[in-house]
Amino acid sequence: MFPSSVQVTEVGTRDGLQSEKQFVPTERKIAFIRGFAAAGLRRIEATSFVSPRAVPQLADASEVVGAVRDLGPTITALVPNAKGAERAVAAGVDEMMLFISASESHSNTNLNMPIDQAIAAATPVADIARREGKVLRAAIAVAFGCPFEGDVPTATVSRIAGRLKALGINSLTLGDTTGMASPRHVEALCGRLLEDHPDVELTLHFHNTRGLGLVNVLTGLRLGIDKYESAAAGLGGCPFAAGATGNICTEDLVYMLSELGIETGVDLDAMTEVALEMERCLGRPLPGQLMRAGPRSRLHPMDSVRRAVG
Amino acid sequence: MFPSSVQVTEVGTRDGLQSEKQFVPTERKIAFIRGFAAAGLRRIEATSFVSPRAVPQLADASEVVGAVRDLGPTITALVPNAKGAERAVAAGVDEMMLFISASESHSNTNLNMPIDQAIAAATPVADIARREGKVLRAAIAVAFGCPFEGDVPTATVSRIAGRLKALGINSLTLGDTTGMASPRHVEALCGRLLEDHPDVELTLHFHNTRGLGLVNVLTGLRLGIDKYESAAAGLGGCPFAAGATGNICTEDLVYMLSELGIETGVDLDAMTEVALEMERCLGRPLPGQLMRAGPRSRLHPMDSVRRAVG
Repeated sequence: MFPSSVQVTEVGTRDGLQSEKQFVPTERKIAFIRGFAAAGLRRIEATSFVSPRAVPQLADASEVVGAVRDLGPTITALVPNAKGAERAVAAGVDEMMLFISASESHSNTNLNMPIDQAIAAATPVADIARREGKVLRAAIAVAFGCPFEGDVPTATVSRIAGRLKALGINSLTLGDTTGMASPRHVEALCGRLLEDHPDVELTLHFHNTRGLGLVNVLTGLRLGIDKYESAAAGLGGCPFAAGATGNICTEDLVYMLSELGIETGVDLDAMTEVALEMERCLGRPLPGQLMRAGPRSRLHPMDSVRRAVG
Repeated sequence: MFPSSVQVTEVGTRDGLQSEKQFVPTERKIAFIRGFAAAGLRRIEATSFVSPRAVPQLADASEVVGAVRDLGPTITALVPNAKGAERAVAAGVDEMMLFISASESHSNTNLNMPIDQAIAAATPVADIARREGKVLRAAIAVAFGCPFEGDVPTATVSRIAGRLKALGINSLTLGDTTGMASPRHVEALCGRLLEDHPDVELTLHFHNTRGLGLVNVLTGLRLGIDKYESAAAGLGGCPFAAGATGNICTEDLVYMLSELGIETGVDLDAMTEVALEMERCLGRPLPGQLMRAGPRSRLHPMDSVRRAVG
């Protein structure tokens, strides 16, 4: 009933680090990505080729990609426009990710343009991808709800998916940008897309803002969806809520999948080491659970505790 | 497919506060329980009548129960033995909870006796309950795995359930004491118990130690199980892992259930207030997510943020 294997895409250095106050040094970013690769992750969203003025945290996108392009895993990066796409291609990405909002308010706030214009702006990016022989994917942000507008109709997301398909994009990430998804949304939206666009490959990107991240993954798995995005240590935040958590946590996700008997190719111990290093680097507790508790297989000596009632 | 309503039992002042280093003043505990009742919780595990020497944090069990017994919700408390049961009855509990471990190592570590002896010690408690006309329930700790022994056979748990039934106990909580459960365990163990003991009422008690707490609840819901225990703000810890989280969080659970269209009778805003008060009282960030982010229905003005990419 569940898929037998799942592709986990690590987005920590992109979706995680872009919302950090501090600029994480380029060498550290590269070391994290090397750690992800060594832990067995096969697809890494390394960075974003947005304007360095808009997101100074990722101003080193070209150096980062240049340093990790030959590691082995598929290296992907966000590209907001043709200029970003040219930079991404020059740096040597394997794939590029477009970013379209599912609500007008979010599109205007985030991309400074309405949805139509954002999709129109995607055409030259698609041309570059075709010219360069690069895979182009797209993420649909706020697909499970918009923090400004609330519910986003599934028909709207499906229509955007259709317009992206017309650009030759057959791989879509549904982004739960501010953690508004819940199992019924996941069933409704994914069900609709699987029905309307059976030829599109779906990836789900959940945030754990309201504690439902892995619950939503479990729901996606039941629908047969086998591609998920997550961030080491549960890095990332929510711009609307101080202290709220961000992306679902890679180690916690991989642990859940392994407990379900689903292959990911990721070594949990190695991944946990990278997550702990991420936490040391950022200097504050990150939300990942597994990195504190260890997997259930890690047993304890009986004299290690007197009481564990409850 | 899911139950239409769920009974949430709040265990924060028991399973949460018992593992705090500090003694939370009796008045604060009573205020929390009043808050739970005002938020609509109908069953509250208020405290534990264990030896005050063993768990000084709950030395005020009698005062706490005495102050909340007439609030309205069913007040239950842990009773480890006949002495505790007499104290609980004198204080005025509505129900009592026995506590049996599913593994010998845990039973020896936690209760200082093997399982057989713990079940034998339950007989006088059952007699007191019968004499006083109180409902007696039991929790089976480490039912989903033991931190010392690892896997616990479902047959073992089922056998313990049978022995508790012989004492007249028809309501059992399966305790995931150190967060070792995952969906397949939940299906296997609950499936076995529902089959072996169809007359027993099951309650599930998960810890979020490895991030799977609500995933396990979702799995239980699919099996039709409609009773769960949780702690405000996700209070509680894990004795084996500093910084690891404890019980699943009541507000997060109630939020998930409400998003699934499942009734709980709990007012999410009121519950969030109590959780935030719990956090202020303990003076450190607690793991609850919803209390930071608010429900998805809480929208934001567009000018409240510039970027929410990803």
